[in-house]
Amino acid sequence: MKSVIGWGFIGAGGITKRVMNDFKELSDAKLVAVFSRTEANAVQLAQPYGAKAYTDCEAMIRNPEVDAIYIATPHHLHMEHACLALELGKPVLCEKPFAPNAAQVRKMVEKARETGTYLMEAMWTRFFPVTRKVMQWVSDGTIGDVHYLTADFGFSAAENPQSRLFNPDMAGGSLLDVGVYAVSYASMVFGSKPVEVLSRSRSTSTGVDARMACLLEYENGQMASLFSSISTSTPQEVRIIGTKGHIEVPRFWSPREARLFIGDRLEDTIKDERTGEGFGYEFTAVHEDLRSGRKENALITLDESIAVAETLDTLRAQWGLVYPFEG
Amino acid sequence: MKSVIGWGFIGAGGITKRVMNDFKELSDAKLVAVFSRTEANAVQLAQPYGAKAYTDCEAMIRNPEVDAIYIATPHHLHMEHACLALELGKPVLCEKPFAPNAAQVRKMVEKARETGTYLMEAMWTRFFPVTRKVMQWVSDGTIGDVHYLTADFGFSAAENPQSRLFNPDMAGGSLLDVGVYAVSYASMVFGSKPVEVLSRSRSTSTGVDARMACLLEYENGQMASLFSSISTSTPQEVRIIGTKGHIEVPRFWSPREARLFIGDRLEDTIKDERTGEGFGYEFTAVHEDLRSGRKENALITLDESIAVAETLDTLRAQWGLVYPFEG
Repeated sequence: MKSVIGWGFIGAGGITKRVMNDFKELSDAKLVAVFSRTEANAVQLAQPYGAKAYTDCEAMIRNPEVDAIYIATPHHLHMEHACLALELGKPVLCEKPFAPNAAQVRKMVEKARETGTYLMEAMWTRFFPVTRKVMQWVSDGTIGDVHYLTADFGFSAAENPQSRLFNPDMAGGSLLDVGVYAVSYASMVFGSKPVEVLSRSRSTSTGVDARMACLLEYENGQMASLFSSISTSTPQEVRIIGTKGHIEVPRFWSPREARLFIGDRLEDTIKDERTGEGFGYEFTAVHEDLRSGRKENALITLDESIAVAETLDTLRAQWGLVYPFEG
Repeated sequence: MKSVIGWGFIGAGGITKRVMNDFKELSDAKLVAVFSRTEANAVQLAQPYGAKAYTDCEAMIRNPEVDAIYIATPHHLHMEHACLALELGKPVLCEKPFAPNAAQVRKMVEKARETGTYLMEAMWTRFFPVTRKVMQWVSDGTIGDVHYLTADFGFSAAENPQSRLFNPDMAGGSLLDVGVYAVSYASMVFGSKPVEVLSRSRSTSTGVDARMACLLEYENGQMASLFSSISTSTPQEVRIIGTKGHIEVPRFWSPREARLFIGDRLEDTIKDERTGEGFGYEFTAVHEDLRSGRKENALITLDESIAVAETLDTLRAQWGLVYPFEG
């Protein structure tokens, strides 16, 4: 792999602009190509970085300067774009949720394995220094045995049937937009899929989940209570609760701080004094994987991405939420 | 009712000693009598206050200086003691949980109504200035519509089959010891019984619940995730989460502080600068009721105590937890 990795971005919406603010600070990566169906968007994102704008996705991927692909289209398009890139032998970092359902995630993973090409879900949360330290506290037994985890991720959006968030055709709803962070976090901490999923949700007028709460039970009796919403302003915090103490992670999905409590005494606080949102961490992880010739990332394996997608499927099945394209 | 109300205490264990630390600061109440099956305990509690020690419960209740009875025996004995006091026409403040199951609570309530005698569950949480302010924020719509509530109450105790906490014959377990606070808090905020109860628990080796998690759904789609444990050191916090913001109440069961967030901005903090644990508030509430001739308290009605007991029953039924005396 080259010392500076050339990236091609698929999608030129709000998320890619946020990502670029962090990405441009990386010394070992550069944006070389951008695809968007809307030419103006592709040009607008590409131009400041001297990257090439495309409205032909395959041509962009084939560009020999493109060493890796980042996919940030709406999630109902991820599978198509990921499989195309993998087919063409380009490593892929694909936004979360990997795809709207486990069947699509499995197809992407099969394609990666079939072609021997790198694939990773852009679950950026896992790559923050704060998250890594939290996981170290957990695995060191600092808070004893973990019995319980709570996570909530909600914000209050005005209901707008035109917006992706509320659109069933685009796999809208709270679960896939933000709930996936909570489910994935529980998966990371407990290291397995829940054996039991109990849940309730409420719908938007457009028929996607406005909010949901679930209780997950894991094999050894650990439990997680998760909440997601696009109509509720929540604290957006994870709490990992053990026999001896607990850990609090405010804004856990992009954390700047975590607090360790032993009993009710604040024992330690760690901080990430980064500037920017922190998208750089996951790109650096991909770079390390690519340079080491790994086909997937150890902190978010493909099997775990499948397992998380299966939990999301189970939740939606309990609510009877089927997207039109799943017909 | 006299200007200084004479109280008789039933039970002289750890809880009555804590209560007395606050009770003795009240200007309009005095301890006049104490009953305990163990004479030394009765004397030890009564003597410093010039109260009379009894090992005959009925005789203590009949003492004409006793205007009101406070019951702080283990909860499997509450019904017997409460019904005796009510039968003798003495107003009763009875520790939480009111009784180990709804059938016993209903018998106590029937006895109160039959005899026209005052009865109140000592759910002291409701009478703190912080709790009252929190409920005002909720009812004022300060955080918008409430969608979700979380509450946890857990501490880590060494498993000891001799201890009340772990003893099925004494209705041990996390739910009745501390979970009741979480269930009662949700009942207070949502003003009704859940229409759906989903839960899981884990047992101690003695067969009571070491910990439990539940997801409660209310009629209008509000949800609560509650956790209780006698083997887990939890934050012991309530969060009430709405469309516009949320409220955090650390140590919600005996709160000194509550924080109001609008979006993610800390908007207001209220504090209770009391000395002591705060048991005085509930006694003052009883005094006001008695002086006004009320037969129950408006902040914790008897019907609500029954409803909470029914929810606790539902939870235990889901786990198959039956106490030996429930045969």
